[in-house]
Amino acid sequence: MTEPAFRRARRPEHKQQRREAILTAARELALRSGVRNVSLGGVATTVGLAKSNVVRYFGTREEIYLELAAEGWREWADAVTVRLREATAPAEVIDALTQTLAARPLFCDLLSHTATNLEHNISVPAARAFKRTVMGVVTELGAQITKAHPDLTGDEGGELLVAAIGMAGMLYPVANPSSALAELYAQDPDLAAACLPFEPTMKRNLTVVAAGLKALRNDRP
Amino acid sequence: MTEPAFRRARRPEHKQQRREAILTAARELALRSGVRNVSLGGVATTVGLAKSNVVRYFGTREEIYLELAAEGWREWADAVTVRLREATAPAEVIDALTQTLAARPLFCDLLSHTATNLEHNISVPAARAFKRTVMGVVTELGAQITKAHPDLTGDEGGELLVAAIGMAGMLYPVANPSSALAELYAQDPDLAAACLPFEPTMKRNLTVVAAGLKALRNDRP
Repeated sequence: MTEPAFRRARRPEHKQQRREAILTAARELALRSGVRNVSLGGVATTVGLAKSNVVRYFGTREEIYLELAAEGWREWADAVTVRLREATAPAEVIDALTQTLAARPLFCDLLSHTATNLEHNISVPAARAFKRTVMGVVTELGAQITKAHPDLTGDEGGELLVAAIGMAGMLYPVANPSSALAELYAQDPDLAAACLPFEPTMKRNLTVVAAGLKALRNDRP
Repeated sequence: MTEPAFRRARRPEHKQQRREAILTAARELALRSGVRNVSLGGVATTVGLAKSNVVRYFGTREEIYLELAAEGWREWADAVTVRLREATAPAEVIDALTQTLAARPLFCDLLSHTATNLEHNISVPAARAFKRTVMGVVTELGAQITKAHPDLTGDEGGELLVAAIGMAGMLYPVANPSSALAELYAQDPDLAAACLPFEPTMKRNLTVVAAGLKALRNDRP
């Protein structure tokens, strides 16, 4: 718990500072304990504010994490853009998507909770801001992927991108099992096959999707 | 809230009845409000027992829903088995997977929460029982899919199955948006493209995966 430098944030720069302090606390707590284990009360305690004060900045716990998810989408899009500039072979495009996601555990954790949790208990304006960010990145990065991947055309880059995001959100909690599952896998190595490793599984699945998109197009009469 | 027929379940058949009553209440509550909105207290109230009594049968809320998920896997496997017996063309195999999942909203809801939520806060024996069920179905149905789908061979049926399950868990909450998102989509039709429809998206994605599995095998030197 940190002591805030001012009691009430009245000036716009103070309000902005508070907002940033709340996001920083939420980010650190989620990195330490996982998104699923952080409550609004936990964020408030860490940032040194009352819960009733935190909700003046973000209506709910979910709105805080949705803001961090939007930030994650923008930051990831920048990283992929840099990697795609150097990519020419199909495998390099797949590596760019896979490795940038593997390097961002908090973003993957947020992706895994977005539709089931973070998009609930929020206001319509918060939902709108988030969806605009996501749709903007999907459109922009989708076009970049189509341009960089020699086997893809039209909207197929966007399809590969949505597949990558969906897979990352699905695989991240599978590859990072709960304490009960980790113990089970240590006791029963035959069941440990259920613990799919993140990077190789992402790479294999995205290679399959890209090959399938190309094959279906070629089959078309 | 229902009144239990006996105060304490001492005989094995009464214990089994209690267990069934708890599962029935949890199932009905999840069908009505969604898995994410049901608490252990809600289940206890509905079944007419104290929380301290419910946890003698299932240690946690998550163990109750993991048991329903295991039941869902077995019941779905039976339904797919029947459909696969009649399937000969690739599209029929994809339809069998897609339509049996689309017809089971509670199973899809449970799939969407399994790795992020239901596999946490559970005992190792509960984790083991669940994973054995899942691995058994994946092995058995995977082999059936390979046999039924003329373009697949070896483990590829299992890969298609795991893809179907992952997609269903990812797509279900996207296709069934929260109240804030539903309002947003009604207000901003341009953002409603983010609300992917379950059946057509499953069918397209599984067709891409099956085509990709075949194409990659044919490309192999």
